[in-house]
Amino acid sequence: MKVLRFGPADAVFERSPGQDADIFAANMADQKQGGPITVGYGRYGPDQVLETDIVVDDVMVVLEGRVSVEAAGETLTAGPGEIIYMSKGNAVIIRSHAEGALTAYVTYPHWSEAE
Amino acid sequence: MKVLRFGPADAVFERSPGQDADIFAANMADQKQGGPITVGYGRYGPDQVLETDIVVDDVMVVLEGRVSVEAAGETLTAGPGEIIYMSKGNAVIIRSHAEGALTAYVTYPHWSEAE
Repeated sequence: MKVLRFGPADAVFERSPGQDADIFAANMADQKQGGPITVGYGRYGPDQVLETDIVVDDVMVVLEGRVSVEAAGETLTAGPGEIIYMSKGNAVIIRSHAEGALTAYVTYPHWSEAE
Repeated sequence: MKVLRFGPADAVFERSPGQDADIFAANMADQKQGGPITVGYGRYGPDQVLETDIVVDDVMVVLEGRVSVEAAGETLTAGPGEIIYMSKGNAVIIRSHAEGALTAYVTYPHWSEAE
């Protein structure tokens, strides 16, 4: 596989499966390219909530706004340049704040095959 | 493994191995936590050059500044919020620009075991 470059402007966002919040994901590279990881962008509207079981290792790099993740009774909040690493097996509640959020994500293995 | 949160302020940067440029890496999670991926921050001084063989899948999210990656005669440049995905098997030349750069990275598998 060649070296690839992605930007938010190239992202085609789709509503994340299994929920109807204003939370969207855009895979930029996934199983279709043949590599072991999925790379993409996430976009969160204001004050959205997503309760989900983490079935793959999922790293979220916050680019704009803020995201909070509650797991096992503890809440971690990340803003621009900060990272939340949700490892496989966690049950989480992900919340955006009033300003919404833009994130970059990397998962191993491919999240869309693990749903 | 619990959900983890990292910020650049928590990073302890070390010079990337095998080179003497002003290019530093700080693993925030790696084989020590028991997960399959390494997560960290990279810091580049102004106008640095690193020629290297990519031995693991390596995703770089640019947080500040700009980074260019030359591979197979093509150069890709990424600024804040943009991503460069260097898959295993590429020979690359990574260059920072006058303003230096701060990046977040995710590798699969762990880069420090593959050197």
